[in-house]
Amino acid sequence: MGAVKTKRMPRAVREQQMLDAAVQIFGRRGYMAASMDEIAELAGVSKPLVYLYLNSKEDLFTACIRREATALTEAVRAGVRPGLPADRQLWDGLQAFFAHTAEHPDGWSVLHLQARTHGETFAAEVTAMREEIVAFVTQLIAVTAREAHRDPDLPEREVAGLAVALVGAAESLAAWANATPGVTARQAAATLMNFAWAGLGNLMEGRHWTPSAGEA
Amino acid sequence: MGAVKTKRMPRAVREQQMLDAAVQIFGRRGYMAASMDEIAELAGVSKPLVYLYLNSKEDLFTACIRREATALTEAVRAGVRPGLPADRQLWDGLQAFFAHTAEHPDGWSVLHLQARTHGETFAAEVTAMREEIVAFVTQLIAVTAREAHRDPDLPEREVAGLAVALVGAAESLAAWANATPGVTARQAAATLMNFAWAGLGNLMEGRHWTPSAGEA
Repeated sequence: MGAVKTKRMPRAVREQQMLDAAVQIFGRRGYMAASMDEIAELAGVSKPLVYLYLNSKEDLFTACIRREATALTEAVRAGVRPGLPADRQLWDGLQAFFAHTAEHPDGWSVLHLQARTHGETFAAEVTAMREEIVAFVTQLIAVTAREAHRDPDLPEREVAGLAVALVGAAESLAAWANATPGVTARQAAATLMNFAWAGLGNLMEGRHWTPSAGEA
Repeated sequence: MGAVKTKRMPRAVREQQMLDAAVQIFGRRGYMAASMDEIAELAGVSKPLVYLYLNSKEDLFTACIRREATALTEAVRAGVRPGLPADRQLWDGLQAFFAHTAEHPDGWSVLHLQARTHGETFAAEVTAMREEIVAFVTQLIAVTAREAHRDPDLPEREVAGLAVALVGAAESLAAWANATPGVTARQAAATLMNFAWAGLGNLMEGRHWTPSAGEA
């Protein structure tokens, strides 16, 4: 029975099962403590088959990072409808982001923590995803600024800085939301939206925060 | 000459020289690639002396993380004067934070990247520092909200979320500022202040961002 089932299941399906198991074990145990034995057992396959398909623990981990990074960026992109106003796009994007990280806590742990905690090769995979998200947010802010702007003085560099701040805030909140019982994806998105949008809105109207007069 | 100098230099001074060298090498090369030979050479001491004083590469790295974490939290605390208005305290704290991370890029690399990229033991050291800073910011927001509030409805959990978002944004911006030529500490602090304060100010006045009416 088992052998027949193994032969009939396409390689792609089996590989996804291995990756599902690996993301769970890497996310919960950490990269160093994760064992290939446990991953194979959870996937319901033999350890040699995992090595045959994914080559090594390093390659399996890299495949996990790539799959989870692609899934996260696709979820965010799918959540955003380009025709809508910018605050609506940001709100939809944030909700999609926090919903995805809440529904895939092991995948988020792999991306946010594990991929950054075991050497520069893995970290570079996450950096690429992060730069894509920062570029997306930068463009969202820049377009809004161009459209809504009476005062054209929002320099490109400041827009980039705002996007970097927003992405950092979202990452930090996602980790916190997953670790804090009872915080929903919608609440996390609303907290960040409240925090970010009023500030961005003011900036786009040319209202900057300034230190009290007479002090540096 | 050398031997005499070695004998006359107090252990504490020599240890600080080793830590200076180690932070530089760990910060620039990464933990894995850093060699004890290079650290000893840069510190101007023999490798056995580094092992005698700091025991192992792991212990040396832990000592670096602790020293840099303490220096950063002390710099932020020293920058803030408790009697001033909350926006001023936040502005001073952010300026101190970005000035310190700009002046100590290797130390910041050790804390933000290296300490998180080589296992849970090192990561826990940084988590402790981070929780202290989040608690400090949470308290700053909570006190302001209490003082300035007409609408008492800013739940404790939302205050914690805001602090987590702000700290994540600051970390993200510090790494970006250090990697982007020409971005000063003051500019990074101003970008975050512009981003954060208007939003916080609105929240404290009870003005929340809401999705457009009729849409979820």
